[in-house]
Amino acid sequence: MVKVSVFRLEHRAVRDKRISTHVALVARAFGADSIYYSGDKDSEMEKSVTDIAESWGGPFTIEHVDSYRKFIKDFKGEKLHLTMYGLPYKTELKQLDKQDKLIIVGGGKVPFEVYEMADRNIAVTSQPHSEVAALGIFLEHLSGEKKGFKNAKQVITPQDCGKKVVEK
Amino acid sequence: MVKVSVFRLEHRAVRDKRISTHVALVARAFGADSIYYSGDKDSEMEKSVTDIAESWGGPFTIEHVDSYRKFIKDFKGEKLHLTMYGLPYKTELKQLDKQDKLIIVGGGKVPFEVYEMADRNIAVTSQPHSEVAALGIFLEHLSGEKKGFKNAKQVITPQDCGKKVVEK
Repeated sequence: MVKVSVFRLEHRAVRDKRISTHVALVARAFGADSIYYSGDKDSEMEKSVTDIAESWGGPFTIEHVDSYRKFIKDFKGEKLHLTMYGLPYKTELKQLDKQDKLIIVGGGKVPFEVYEMADRNIAVTSQPHSEVAALGIFLEHLSGEKKGFKNAKQVITPQDCGKKVVEK
Repeated sequence: MVKVSVFRLEHRAVRDKRISTHVALVARAFGADSIYYSGDKDSEMEKSVTDIAESWGGPFTIEHVDSYRKFIKDFKGEKLHLTMYGLPYKTELKQLDKQDKLIIVGGGKVPFEVYEMADRNIAVTSQPHSEVAALGIFLEHLSGEKKGFKNAKQVITPQDCGKKVVEK
């Protein structure tokens, strides 16, 4: 099975805390096993994400890396950079191979070398919106909704009107 | 054609500024004509959103409302509340009618009466992730990527490696 990881570029601890947390949780919900990020090391964000994975199940890990350049270069597999300037996702999705995937999302101004290091630059619409939504839509097509989280302490029973959480 | 609007519940100007802005831009990119929001009136966020719509095209409007209760109650059409506690989106999507839609997203702790006022409570996965991604995924299925924005001052020409923006 193809393993999917997400890379969040150049996290800024003050400005990006919530957005990067959302990116991480979307990665987890749609089948990635891990998120890596560069920029500011942010223990508070890491704790938010690992707390969620402990409560709602894993496996899911978050890890800071010092150099996006080295990390992306060394990654073994297909490197897909989500950017509004790239080629349309619906056609790109059909052309992916069977290798493991690294899905790269910005992060402030993305250095041009990231475009060059990526195997594909992929646009989830050519409009400005959100790396959170772009990642969610892309992963939903690529991997779909993840089922069967391991070691969840709680799980939701879907309701038409109400909140039902079952402790395990 | 079914008209789609988005409602962002109980915006908090300091904490939610970027997340709510992302919600608005996702709404625009996937075919909503307008976003409404309750909570703190936030002129700075409104300006970010209207600036994007002026540059990249519309129509798209953002409007603050004082009472979510009155707004949701008075809306003529199908009221769909996105929540991780709701019923699975893939089956819910098949059961929608032809009325105009209001897509409701939280916002902090969502008052229980919102669950009751909604015609459907819909989960884009039963996992905690992001209202931004949930909205993006839901709208992508409901309306798809919007094409043909009016009066855009700039437009992207998709590239395999690079950024090309054409001024109009």
